[in-house]
Amino acid sequence: MLGPGDDAAIIGAPDGRVVVSTDLLLEGRHFRRDWSTGYDVGRKAAAQNLADVAAMGATPTSLVVGLGLPADLPLSWLDALTDGLADECATIGASVAGGDVTRCDLVVIGVTALGDLGGRAPVLRSGARPGHVVAVAGRLGYAAAGWALLEAGVPADSGALREAVAGHRAPCPPYAMGPVAAGLGASAMLDVSDGLLQDLGHVAEASGVRVELDPGAFPVGDPVAAAAKELGADPLEWVLSGGEDHALAAMFPPDVRLPAEWHVVGRVVEGEGVVVYGREIGRRGWDHFG
Amino acid sequence: MLGPGDDAAIIGAPDGRVVVSTDLLLEGRHFRRDWSTGYDVGRKAAAQNLADVAAMGATPTSLVVGLGLPADLPLSWLDALTDGLADECATIGASVAGGDVTRCDLVVIGVTALGDLGGRAPVLRSGARPGHVVAVAGRLGYAAAGWALLEAGVPADSGALREAVAGHRAPCPPYAMGPVAAGLGASAMLDVSDGLLQDLGHVAEASGVRVELDPGAFPVGDPVAAAAKELGADPLEWVLSGGEDHALAAMFPPDVRLPAEWHVVGRVVEGEGVVVYGREIGRRGWDHFG
Repeated sequence: MLGPGDDAAIIGAPDGRVVVSTDLLLEGRHFRRDWSTGYDVGRKAAAQNLADVAAMGATPTSLVVGLGLPADLPLSWLDALTDGLADECATIGASVAGGDVTRCDLVVIGVTALGDLGGRAPVLRSGARPGHVVAVAGRLGYAAAGWALLEAGVPADSGALREAVAGHRAPCPPYAMGPVAAGLGASAMLDVSDGLLQDLGHVAEASGVRVELDPGAFPVGDPVAAAAKELGADPLEWVLSGGEDHALAAMFPPDVRLPAEWHVVGRVVEGEGVVVYGREIGRRGWDHFG
Repeated sequence: MLGPGDDAAIIGAPDGRVVVSTDLLLEGRHFRRDWSTGYDVGRKAAAQNLADVAAMGATPTSLVVGLGLPADLPLSWLDALTDGLADECATIGASVAGGDVTRCDLVVIGVTALGDLGGRAPVLRSGARPGHVVAVAGRLGYAAAGWALLEAGVPADSGALREAVAGHRAPCPPYAMGPVAAGLGASAMLDVSDGLLQDLGHVAEASGVRVELDPGAFPVGDPVAAAAKELGADPLEWVLSGGEDHALAAMFPPDVRLPAEWHVVGRVVEGEGVVVYGREIGRRGWDHFG
């Protein structure tokens, strides 16, 4: 409603409530300028906050951004960053509403995303109940596979490998599935930022339930499978433990009919923790959830 | 409505619009840990964003905060910071609704403040018209006087000098006067963050008018006068050019009766720029506005 240039931005909040998520992204810790372009960093910075908003069941509406920039940063990098922020917002009809710039020795990006619930109740982490199904929408394992390819220095010389590397550089969250899940009565939801097993552990704890996953039910994308073959790795480990794809994971009552974007991968039972059937417990990244 | 612990916070926006302001504060640039306590930094970080929201005519409701923290930062400093953020919010009935923490080599504080317009039109920088009066509410020159005392290494051995130093460490913005001014029909408003002359220059430019100030009309606080006497400085220079006090400056139609918190200090005329009558142009900080 009012963008950059005044003391503050004004953003529509027709629901009468506003959903807000904020994150800091730091050069060296969350991105490397030699691995990712400014454009990719902008898309990633926007995506991780827009996905948090979607995971509440809200439609993202706006971003405000605080930037710390080194004096010797090429202007072209900043232009690409702001393009990336704007383009990622545009994928869900949101926009960059304002911001602040200051000098800093490293690139610091503070992103705050806002969204509107459209009259729906927010979907928290605490609502999962025994008998509910566990479903995922969006990519899993892409960012981890792409990171492994970059770290190993393997050239991305096929379409599938390039897609995995692109998935590391910028995620592709299924934003629209957040409000859809809320409308279908999802009982709990979050976006997968640290890895599915770890993140579902938060749901299990907040809801006081146990989450059981069927490893055979997960869709494994071609880029993940291709990268695993290239590196002799287990693709399911990336799918279950890889972070930064910002897929959505939601629990639904068992009688809900889910659209094709959602894949049922497990169920909620009484108990605690997260288990994966038919897989040995104790592998890297799985230990805490057996 | 929903605070820390889920993917995002949920904040009431009864007006159906939300006012949003964001800033990054960086150690070494915006504060020094040897000059300011964690508590002071928290108050200052909250204040500068809450003041931006108030300057739109809105009542601040919430903060969300992204923190970058060094591994060796004492926990007591972090505790003091969060206390300062919360206490500053409490002065206007707002609260800290959520946040994010990450590791960083220096302390980085990303603050986003939200506020509610309560059905009022937002007060922009662009609405000043010839014939309107210019008024200020809140402190001017305190932060600059306190900084000058600290820089000169002068011991703050009187109540007035201590108050000036405290004014540098954390401002005391007149938040409630923002919505009051909007309700009284203010035509333009901003908070004084970079110095009154410079900030009014933004109003003059955005509104296409000239701002004339009467140097004799400004209230000079005892702390500012005491610091100026101690250092042989001109107190009015701090009042007119000192930043970081986050006073509010607003333009009103000439027939408005203003409450005692507002001091009329000038008028809006046709033309451009900012002038101060009876003072030589060309002094430090004034040059661009003559």
